[in-house]
Amino acid sequence: MSPSSNPHPPETMSAALLHGIRDIRLASVPVPHPGPGEVLLKIASVGVCGSDVHYYLEGGIGDAIVKEPIIMGHEFSATIAALGAGVEHLEVGQLVAVEPAINCGHCEMCLTGHPNLCPHVRFCGTPPIDGVFTEYAVMIAENCFPLPAGMSSVAGALLEPLGVAIHTIDLSHLKVGQTVAVLGAGPVGLLVAAVARAAGASAIYMTEPVAERRAFARSYIADEVFDPTEEDVAAKVLAATQGRGVDVSIEAAGAMDSPEQAAEMVRLGGTLVLCGIPVDDSLTLTASLIRRKGLTIKMVRRMKHVYPRAIRLVARGMVDVAPLASHFFTLDNIQEAFEMVAGYQDGIIKAVVQLAP
Amino acid sequence: MSPSSNPHPPETMSAALLHGIRDIRLASVPVPHPGPGEVLLKIASVGVCGSDVHYYLEGGIGDAIVKEPIIMGHEFSATIAALGAGVEHLEVGQLVAVEPAINCGHCEMCLTGHPNLCPHVRFCGTPPIDGVFTEYAVMIAENCFPLPAGMSSVAGALLEPLGVAIHTIDLSHLKVGQTVAVLGAGPVGLLVAAVARAAGASAIYMTEPVAERRAFARSYIADEVFDPTEEDVAAKVLAATQGRGVDVSIEAAGAMDSPEQAAEMVRLGGTLVLCGIPVDDSLTLTASLIRRKGLTIKMVRRMKHVYPRAIRLVARGMVDVAPLASHFFTLDNIQEAFEMVAGYQDGIIKAVVQLAP
Amino acid sequence: MSPSSNPHPPETMSAALLHGIRDIRLASVPVPHPGPGEVLLKIASVGVCGSDVHYYLEGGIGDAIVKEPIIMGHEFSATIAALGAGVEHLEVGQLVAVEPAINCGHCEMCLTGHPNLCPHVRFCGTPPIDGVFTEYAVMIAENCFPLPAGMSSVAGALLEPLGVAIHTIDLSHLKVGQTVAVLGAGPVGLLVAAVARAAGASAIYMTEPVAERRAFARSYIADEVFDPTEEDVAAKVLAATQGRGVDVSIEAAGAMDSPEQAAEMVRLGGTLVLCGIPVDDSLTLTASLIRRKGLTIKMVRRMKHVYPRAIRLVARGMVDVAPLASHFFTLDNIQEAFEMVAGYQDGIIKAVVQLAP
Amino acid sequence: MSPSSNPHPPETMSAALLHGIRDIRLASVPVPHPGPGEVLLKIASVGVCGSDVHYYLEGGIGDAIVKEPIIMGHEFSATIAALGAGVEHLEVGQLVAVEPAINCGHCEMCLTGHPNLCPHVRFCGTPPIDGVFTEYAVMIAENCFPLPAGMSSVAGALLEPLGVAIHTIDLSHLKVGQTVAVLGAGPVGLLVAAVARAAGASAIYMTEPVAERRAFARSYIADEVFDPTEEDVAAKVLAATQGRGVDVSIEAAGAMDSPEQAAEMVRLGGTLVLCGIPVDDSLTLTASLIRRKGLTIKMVRRMKHVYPRAIRLVARGMVDVAPLASHFFTLDNIQEAFEMVAGYQDGIIKAVVQLAP
Repeated sequence: MSPSSNPHPPETMSAALLHGIRDIRLASVPVPHPGPGEVLLKIASVGVCGSDVHYYLEGGIGDAIVKEPIIMGHEFSATIAALGAGVEHLEVGQLVAVEPAINCGHCEMCLTGHPNLCPHVRFCGTPPIDGVFTEYAVMIAENCFPLPAGMSSVAGALLEPLGVAIHTIDLSHLKVGQTVAVLGAGPVGLLVAAVARAAGASAIYMTEPVAERRAFARSYIADEVFDPTEEDVAAKVLAATQGRGVDVSIEAAGAMDSPEQAAEMVRLGGTLVLCGIPVDDSLTLTASLIRRKGLTIKMVRRMKHVYPRAIRLVARGMVDVAPLASHFFTLDNIQEAFEMVAGYQDGIIKAVVQLAP
Repeated sequence: MSPSSNPHPPETMSAALLHGIRDIRLASVPVPHPGPGEVLLKIASVGVCGSDVHYYLEGGIGDAIVKEPIIMGHEFSATIAALGAGVEHLEVGQLVAVEPAINCGHCEMCLTGHPNLCPHVRFCGTPPIDGVFTEYAVMIAENCFPLPAGMSSVAGALLEPLGVAIHTIDLSHLKVGQTVAVLGAGPVGLLVAAVARAAGASAIYMTEPVAERRAFARSYIADEVFDPTEEDVAAKVLAATQGRGVDVSIEAAGAMDSPEQAAEMVRLGGTLVLCGIPVDDSLTLTASLIRRKGLTIKMVRRMKHVYPRAIRLVARGMVDVAPLASHFFTLDNIQEAFEMVAGYQDGIIKAVVQLAP
Repeated sequence: MSPSSNPHPPETMSAALLHGIRDIRLASVPVPHPGPGEVLLKIASVGVCGSDVHYYLEGGIGDAIVKEPIIMGHEFSATIAALGAGVEHLEVGQLVAVEPAINCGHCEMCLTGHPNLCPHVRFCGTPPIDGVFTEYAVMIAENCFPLPAGMSSVAGALLEPLGVAIHTIDLSHLKVGQTVAVLGAGPVGLLVAAVARAAGASAIYMTEPVAERRAFARSYIADEVFDPTEEDVAAKVLAATQGRGVDVSIEAAGAMDSPEQAAEMVRLGGTLVLCGIPVDDSLTLTASLIRRKGLTIKMVRRMKHVYPRAIRLVARGMVDVAPLASHFFTLDNIQEAFEMVAGYQDGIIKAVVQLAP
Repeated sequence: MSPSSNPHPPETMSAALLHGIRDIRLASVPVPHPGPGEVLLKIASVGVCGSDVHYYLEGGIGDAIVKEPIIMGHEFSATIAALGAGVEHLEVGQLVAVEPAINCGHCEMCLTGHPNLCPHVRFCGTPPIDGVFTEYAVMIAENCFPLPAGMSSVAGALLEPLGVAIHTIDLSHLKVGQTVAVLGAGPVGLLVAAVARAAGASAIYMTEPVAERRAFARSYIADEVFDPTEEDVAAKVLAATQGRGVDVSIEAAGAMDSPEQAAEMVRLGGTLVLCGIPVDDSLTLTASLIRRKGLTIKMVRRMKHVYPRAIRLVARGMVDVAPLASHFFTLDNIQEAFEMVAGYQDGIIKAVVQLAP
């Protein structure tokens, strides 16, 4: 490796700190040092997640509250800038996608294959752990997945929401040739639909209140997209399926009435998967509706061990993540990114903060 | 068979008709005739089900409304009184337990092994199909299960709620040695707990607001029973499990706050099974609670093909249904049965209307 | 409908009867009459199945022996020629694909959603039930699935092996992005691979001893195809997967050593699905190999309720069945079809006997 | 703790080394020292496992060959003799049961909840890792499970084969009220049957060629026990189940013909679980039999995370392990233990080597 490819990292770096509701400020902070088994990452691309926006707009999600200024950001790719002691399977200069959850590895959930439920998890950009809207960060080596040649840093950042989408479809037990509804055409809803298509969904119906997102969803993935502000979306899906309903109905909107709509449009004995985060932190459903249908309801919590599959799906072209990265920002205008996402401005799908190539 | 064991059935019989809210009246109605593949049953024992009480107190469940006078009753045993054409595997005089659901056999749900979700089902005692609070009834032969020697007609009637309990435990995917919470110590909650024990639950925690039911639950099946009107039942179960929570949490109370309690007391990655029927016809849960735990939620709808297993569990003594039949009635005082059940009077668990031995 | 579209069927028809090993003879037999709930079908296209060839070459499969001359043939499409009493959802003149299994509908397997295991099944073209290498046949109406506009009769016939392939992938619990091996590139192996691709397999490795089939498999669906007569196919698949092995390994060759190869190339904790029919009627595996890997092994028996999904997969272009129909025959040269398939001649994949458009 | 309860361990200890086929010799070896996160165990009770006997009689299992003298023994309980650095949840003097597998914690199998399949596992008493037929041993702290008051060291040692039995029943997906066959009434077969009973099996049929083991199985757990040397055991089980067969059939004999018998006695669509280790290292089944039944076959490999459940099942009296410990030995006569087990002498079920109380 040439010296130029591995310059000594600087002593300080610029970072975007969330101080409170709608209050992000840049600051100069020390560049961290990787310990044993860790690497120093030079951050490349970072997506703005819906959960980031929850923190930005509301100062928390449920009882996870922002108390101290925090660096958000957990959907990211990076270049390996330095290796901590004992790291052997990575090289300085490699472009990697990074799984943002550091699990304890020793609790019942970790030992039984559910690291996504580890109560001791340290998750990038979730209080009180800093994230990666910053120039450098330290991460354990085993969370870094080298990207195959030709995969961009932006695609690498999008593997994180793609991973959530894969976990969502895993939970749904969708079978090839079955039909799916996805409520909400934000980034997660779109990726869930894309993974459903890759998994063999023979029809995908979506709902979305924002006109530009409906248009995007139609061109990107969906068979039909309905507008919940104008149409009885459950009736539309039932009509499109000759009254039967879809096999799997996935709530990815976080709207208060979309879980009920999702339940109305799923078939008898079907599966309802909830991956949206509602502002009111409440799920309300009609009891007789879901009981008479004998539904199974699955709650999505992050992902588990899906990065290798996510990389293969993108590398083979089975899921196309590139079109979702609709708007690009830098640290300097990051607050604009949050405002645009919060306001669904200009047809924004996924805002990507680009820190390095 | 001696003639005396198979007297010609009479032309008319006495039946209890629900005319409206809290209005049951006896009437004389014609004895029906069995068609091909059917049998005439002389009703023996009939349990009063919680759903019967819903119709009695509220005139309906969800959009299933009592519009015409109806004979309720679907938990029952009977003696074969006459055989319709072509019935070969039954004999006049046999004591049988009877599965109350007549499925269409041809819809997608029936063909894929989910007859409990058949939208064309005709279910005894559910509008507009008459049930068996009456002396005779006609049923298709394949729904009649001969009882082994020594099993009483009362036990036979209790196989129906036992079947629901078996289906509930099937849905829970409980593993031997796991722990269970059951919210509500009415007949279904008690039977769910009994089946959980038979299935290897190593600890069973129950909740119940009625003192006499708590006492019964303790002596019948539970390790501990908590009072939701006096105690923080979720905190109690969490304390009893060293903070971990139970593997499976089953709501069988139909109270508005018990699903949330059930969610609070289940472990990370656990399963929540809902078999209670809430008066308000609404399910409300805290979204972040169930998402962060990554819960699976299962809705119980009747049962599927479990009578053979129910019979074996009772015949082998693995589930003891007898203690649940706490109060006995006849057609003449059937309204008293409903009032007692509705008011949880006198420690009543299961009211049984005894029409014949 | 014009009279010309529904001419009265003739009194007799030509049929191909298997008299014994390698002995098929045409005969004139009476055209059957549809009873209530049945339809008379004018047969369109019929595929020659590997099981047909087993009967042709060996006179039986396991203890299912050909004792009387029998009409084989069960992969087929047809046109409705006449309706029996009470048939309402079909029309004369419709092109339909036909599920060849008539299940009893009343046994434990039928009632629990496993009609493919019904011991009372009557299966077209399996002793002693006649099949459809003939001009007309009677079938129950509910086994007839109208084809959407634009789907050919040949595609309709291929839905039957496609259905087996869908059932195979269902049993495998393949997840999107996982990797698959398919041993054997005959029609079933190719369709299994095609369904695996539709279900999101990110890599498909096949094995096949016949050179022309290897070439076909490469152009049709596979990432790589290995020759078991020249290469250590398990070593090749392990190398292609960096030593890990595939998630799902599917034996569709019926060769004696392919189950062991399938076991060698599957990953730890993987799933082995067996759908080939070996000549020796024996499965032999190394015990320590499959135990140390903790494998799950699934046996494929026909299919269950998958025609609607099969139709959608073909109609949407998610599975392309057309290329498999490589050689066409008529009743007059049907024995040639069997000889060609038996001898893997001329790169034959699927022989189709075309009786009508 | 008084000094007397925690004397300094000696410098050397006595250990039983297997030098080759039927050649065990005592030797004096150094007492090991616990590293960080480890504990020094004073061994209490150690069971002789069937796999130990394979090594003793044949010098290996499959390609796991004894090349250097090795201390066998992995079914054990012990007293904590000393704590390594950083061990906090254990105390010197505690009686613990010990899970004998040390997994890597970082491979795909460990991360996805299948530590029993970890290819990097170090397993006590399996070449080249020494086991515990010796006075002291070092183990990682997290594999040590304190026993509740009143549970004996012998019961603690038996938790290991009980854990295998729990894993076996987990794999079987047995439902409450279903029926089970267990082939082989050695310790694992008996414990599998005991766990099946605890899990709600309503009938348990066993097979066993040794008369004293048949008698023990009858008194311990089984409904009926058949002799494969005198009876057609599959026919017997089919007759006992009115021709239907059992829901789950578990091979725990390791005999060459018992997998085929197990397949014959299981119902259509049933599950076959193989946990025996056959001498010939080969599994052979009739292909048409298992295909027509549409069986699922599961291979048992050790266990995963089941000690807490094992402890609860024994502590609650749901499984009674005590009767299995039929013969007791010391290090001095350990070879006699192996010979007795190998020869099924004197009705031996489980030989326990008692090193300390």
